[in-house]
Amino acid sequence: KLRGEHDERSLVFADLTREEYWQVQQYMLKQKDLDISTRQLTKPSENFLFLIDLHLPKKADVLNYLDAKGAKPAREATVVVFYGAKGYVREYVVGPLPNPTYHHDVTKQRYNADLPITARLVTIGEYALLFELFETKVFSKLQKILKESFGVNEKRTLNAFEQMPRGVRSGDRKTWISFFRDMDGMYIHLVGFEVLINHQHLNASLWTVDRLMYNGKYYNSVEELQQAYDTSSVNKIVYKETPDYGSLKPRTKPLQIGPQQYYAEGKRYSVQNNHVLYLDWSFAFGLSALTGMRVFDVRFKGERVAYELSVQEAMSMYGSATLGMIITKFLDSSIGIGRFAHELTRGVDCLDKATYVDTYRYSDIPAPRFQNSICIFEHNMGQPLRRHFADFFHHSYGGMVNSALVFRTVTAIGNYDYLWDFIFYQSGSVEAKVHATGYITSSYLVAGSLKHGHQVAENVLGNIHTHFISFKVDLDVAGVKNMFQTKDMEYVNTSLPWMPEHFSMVPQLVEKQLKTEQEAALRYGTKIPRYLHIASKATNRWKHNRSYRLQVYSFSGDHLPESEAEERSMSWARYKVAITKHKDSEQTSSSLYNQNDMWTPAVDFSKYIEDNESIENEDLVAWVTAGFLHIPHAEDIPNTVTVGNGGGVLLRPHNFFNEDPSIHSADSAFFRPG
Amino acid sequence: KLRGEHDERSLVFADLTREEYWQVQQYMLKQKDLDISTRQLTKPSENFLFLIDLHLPKKADVLNYLDAKGAKPAREATVVVFYGAKGYVREYVVGPLPNPTYHHDVTKQRYNADLPITARLVTIGEYALLFELFETKVFSKLQKILKESFGVNEKRTLNAFEQMPRGVRSGDRKTWISFFRDMDGMYIHLVGFEVLINHQHLNASLWTVDRLMYNGKYYNSVEELQQAYDTSSVNKIVYKETPDYGSLKPRTKPLQIGPQQYYAEGKRYSVQNNHVLYLDWSFAFGLSALTGMRVFDVRFKGERVAYELSVQEAMSMYGSATLGMIITKFLDSSIGIGRFAHELTRGVDCLDKATYVDTYRYSDIPAPRFQNSICIFEHNMGQPLRRHFADFFHHSYGGMVNSALVFRTVTAIGNYDYLWDFIFYQSGSVEAKVHATGYITSSYLVAGSLKHGHQVAENVLGNIHTHFISFKVDLDVAGVKNMFQTKDMEYVNTSLPWMPEHFSMVPQLVEKQLKTEQEAALRYGTKIPRYLHIASKATNRWKHNRSYRLQVYSFSGDHLPESEAEERSMSWARYKVAITKHKDSEQTSSSLYNQNDMWTPAVDFSKYIEDNESIENEDLVAWVTAGFLHIPHAEDIPNTVTVGNGGGVLLRPHNFFNEDPSIHSADSAFFRPG
Ligand SMILES: [Ca+2]
Ligand SMILES: [Ca+2]
Ligand SMILES: [Ca+2]
Ligand SMILES: [Ca+2]
Ligand SMILES: [Cu+2]
Ligand SMILES: [Cu+2]
Repeated sequence: KLRGEHDERSLVFADLTREEYWQVQQYMLKQKDLDISTRQLTKPSENFLFLIDLHLPKKADVLNYLDAKGAKPAREATVVVFYGAKGYVREYVVGPLPNPTYHHDVTKQRYNADLPITARLVTIGEYALLFELFETKVFSKLQKILKESFGVNEKRTLNAFEQMPRGVRSGDRKTWISFFRDMDGMYIHLVGFEVLINHQHLNASLWTVDRLMYNGKYYNSVEELQQAYDTSSVNKIVYKETPDYGSLKPRTKPLQIGPQQYYAEGKRYSVQNNHVLYLDWSFAFGLSALTGMRVFDVRFKGERVAYELSVQEAMSMYGSATLGMIITKFLDSSIGIGRFAHELTRGVDCLDKATYVDTYRYSDIPAPRFQNSICIFEHNMGQPLRRHFADFFHHSYGGMVNSALVFRTVTAIGNYDYLWDFIFYQSGSVEAKVHATGYITSSYLVAGSLKHGHQVAENVLGNIHTHFISFKVDLDVAGVKNMFQTKDMEYVNTSLPWMPEHFSMVPQLVEKQLKTEQEAALRYGTKIPRYLHIASKATNRWKHNRSYRLQVYSFSGDHLPESEAEERSMSWARYKVAITKHKDSEQTSSSLYNQNDMWTPAVDFSKYIEDNESIENEDLVAWVTAGFLHIPHAEDIPNTVTVGNGGGVLLRPHNFFNEDPSIHSADSAFFRPG
Repeated sequence: KLRGEHDERSLVFADLTREEYWQVQQYMLKQKDLDISTRQLTKPSENFLFLIDLHLPKKADVLNYLDAKGAKPAREATVVVFYGAKGYVREYVVGPLPNPTYHHDVTKQRYNADLPITARLVTIGEYALLFELFETKVFSKLQKILKESFGVNEKRTLNAFEQMPRGVRSGDRKTWISFFRDMDGMYIHLVGFEVLINHQHLNASLWTVDRLMYNGKYYNSVEELQQAYDTSSVNKIVYKETPDYGSLKPRTKPLQIGPQQYYAEGKRYSVQNNHVLYLDWSFAFGLSALTGMRVFDVRFKGERVAYELSVQEAMSMYGSATLGMIITKFLDSSIGIGRFAHELTRGVDCLDKATYVDTYRYSDIPAPRFQNSICIFEHNMGQPLRRHFADFFHHSYGGMVNSALVFRTVTAIGNYDYLWDFIFYQSGSVEAKVHATGYITSSYLVAGSLKHGHQVAENVLGNIHTHFISFKVDLDVAGVKNMFQTKDMEYVNTSLPWMPEHFSMVPQLVEKQLKTEQEAALRYGTKIPRYLHIASKATNRWKHNRSYRLQVYSFSGDHLPESEAEERSMSWARYKVAITKHKDSEQTSSSLYNQNDMWTPAVDFSKYIEDNESIENEDLVAWVTAGFLHIPHAEDIPNTVTVGNGGGVLLRPHNFFNEDPSIHSADSAFFRPG
């Protein structure tokens, strides 16, 4: 019953298969001169194959393939190797799949610089050594404190969670580790004990415990803390049982189940490989281990409206009175947003009847299966998409319910769970939305804490923080050659034609074209025109430029001042919307390395617009920032709710069509009351 | 299976019954000295009983009744009489129902002024005379033009739609009437012909045709136009058949029906009289003929959080190059928002399985039944309300789907249909939302039109306009004595405790209390703190003020400059949020008379805050403005879609509880993967 047909060419955007990950891994291992290990517990001083991911072909090659019957672009992978033995990180393009014959070092080409080894992610191998260090250099020496203050015994341990960045300047790898009770929702079960580990050396035996924090006071060494504790010169924390307030276990017996959705006549969408058909829509999809969910070649009635719509980065920045959290700035794409797209729960995360898709990713761990990690479903939004009841002259009713396709992943990166939605409406709009839920990050309540948040549980401060999300929106409006237009209103004092002596302030339409990247970098905190359009010179039937409008939903807080050294690693967050000329070399607004080298970021988005290129009659990309300021409150315990905690961007046709395309929907209803 | 119990005391907020309207009408007719008519075609020169509506009892009396076992307040009605024979409008309070014995003239008490008769609404009786005038003074004299230009014949007429305000100063009643083809969606079928009628006189025989507009040119009289046409000195419009582009008839055969919702184990809410129970929620509801939908005594787990949440006004202001639309500013509550709450269509306007409620209103027409004009249903929002997947240390999943109760009316006031929703979430949040759909108002395309919008159909301009919606939010947070708090963030340069020589910009929480009405009148276009709270001195378990936060969703355009004479009739739209001390005498932000006497408005909201009262430890009311700038585009034909065209306010508990109340929901799910 579907209108369109699936297209196998969508596979050009498909994530690597399990088999392909294996082929690339084996190829890399065969390069004996590279001396690469894929052992899970590879040490920082060794060379580790960290990541294998799809290398997207050049856009021009893909368009040639899709639109001009050109050759299928070679299928290639990106490989990231942490060369601990050599002190740098390298990125390769490996191809062609399925039988690789080449690997090109593309590090310099991609980043215009070498990547220092200190910019790398902490691998499972490095974490294993860190945990070993806690045991040997901290826990074993502080058994008395741990027992008396935190109830640690053979059955009861403490859990760890780290703050980032790991220091204050390039090369630093000094991480504040907070300790938590081993309970559900540990993130809100701080015990008041933290340690600063310097793990910059590639040789783990040279790692040091640089500082400790116990109940708000700082100590230079384990011995100093122990001595202070023994001489009773500390304000001792005395262990007591804590209520299980972080638990998500139901506290009420089920009464009766809530509303359910069903497809009486079957699904109106279809998923084949990575290609989705839904009424007039079609698109290809993928899930990057680093940046997460993305769709490509989005078409409505067969016409492409977007080449790419993707998540780029999720950043949060915290305020705190004490501890490592003072400087905490998380850049999740460095840890891997897509990496943490776990199994979705039927009937809770997505509709029970949704289509669930398995994914595979090679990030630290060689390509495990993530079952049901993408869901796709059509949802009855519970309101009309449009309707009119005519009461005057003509009595009639016309309308249609708003049923739309939802494409979703949920990524649980430590404490927070981000719900990512791309929604396809029958009116030709596409929405990219994010909601935050899961546990807040918290700190142990000490004097001065309340300047940075609210108390939310016993001894627990919910710290003020910002959420900023970066989306990439590569609209192609009637082809790739586009321009950037803005529209707004202004009042103009106008004489009335039938009584010229009388003046009224009358709203006028103000249209502008912004012609360079810097003009079109629209900063938060400045007056931004209300309507933002990616437009074509092509016009619709009424001679208006065909366009898609970007409508940004955001409640974001203030961006970090640019004077801060860390700011360049997140410079995309300055802009509500920034428009760049498309380049294959400017694929992402952030990078795998931005978190651990915030001070010399591998990708500084602001550089994309520094050359101030023309954006007239060019292939344009819109980079959109949405988010919200989060001042945690008691109702964030145990979990932040999605309602009100989100943001996104709605892409709406604006003179793109000649009329609302939903008028052709088979869901339209019409009648004349008797 | 419901947790709470219905409470008949909700009837204190109930709209009048059909029987009660009749009792009040009969009582008023018995007052022979008033000489009131209720005939539908009562003339402007006669005295007409225009409106009967519930007179809300004083809040103190209601609270005494609900909370302190006090006496039930007397049931009373408001009656509005247009005294055409005397030249003024009077408002009465009539009571006690069911057998009225008194009527008090409350006009002066309510408005501190007399209400001139020219401030009245145009009644059906006056419209009948206007249509008669078109026939006798316009159509019959211009038969040739009407036929040649617009195809008018015995079978085909023109329809009329009026612009407001009706003039430029108090006392004016000069209305521009536009004419439209008699087709579905006439609002986008302009013919290019308009007339300006002066109907200020109460004696209709003295009404005049002051001006005519034909194809963009103005004429002083019917004769002048006719002569110009006959001498061919006009740019003639030549009639031709027009495509039926305004039709909402389906153009595609149904393929297969979309997703439906069902209640496998029955409804989890209950409606009795005007009282709704839904899980932990309860509230009373009503539908004012003037202001529309409202709820009262909103409680969560038995505790009142809001006394009133109501729609107040829907305003839109247009830009145009020509015609009466240059000055168009619609204030819908003067026409009656609730008055146009018509029957809802099952499965389109609301879920098929929703509960539908009939309503009765006495506005111009004596209390007809509006069948199924309110709908109430629980909706599965298609996403989790909260969820967390624990990957580190503990493997577990906890979450719950977001099912919420929707309380809805749709009001079709001429061209536009507003969808009004109050949504009750299991996390203790309530949302007031509006979406616009239906037909845009348009103008006939002439030279210069494109300064004011886009062409959307042949000879049709979609005019730029603003939508502003006023909501009244009378939260009572832990009692009626509240204060107004704001919260936001600021960066503070801070020395790091473990390396004091290093400074970082660290987010801090900035809390303020705004203590007077003028401080708390937060204008659009100014920097407004991100968090706005109605708070109590009472604290939660963690010693924070219990509060509800107001989160406003708005994409509104610029408000009319205050220098304009009409501005005071809509002065509420200056403010995103304004806080006033509650007064029974300040029930609404607008009035029945604001549309037709914009220049001396019966209610000027800004006066509520002019006395700059203290808002510390007082009963507070928040007046919220939301809306959006609408630059019509081709996709507004035939109807504007709801997606992206809306606004509202989310009321969220913020330290009101000690934890998220949804943790106690029976919908919670939890498991530990095997
Ligand atoms: Ca550039
Ligand atoms: Ca593009
Ligand atoms: Ca006042
Ligand atoms: Ca109040
Ligand atoms: Cu947060
Ligand atoms: Cu509109």
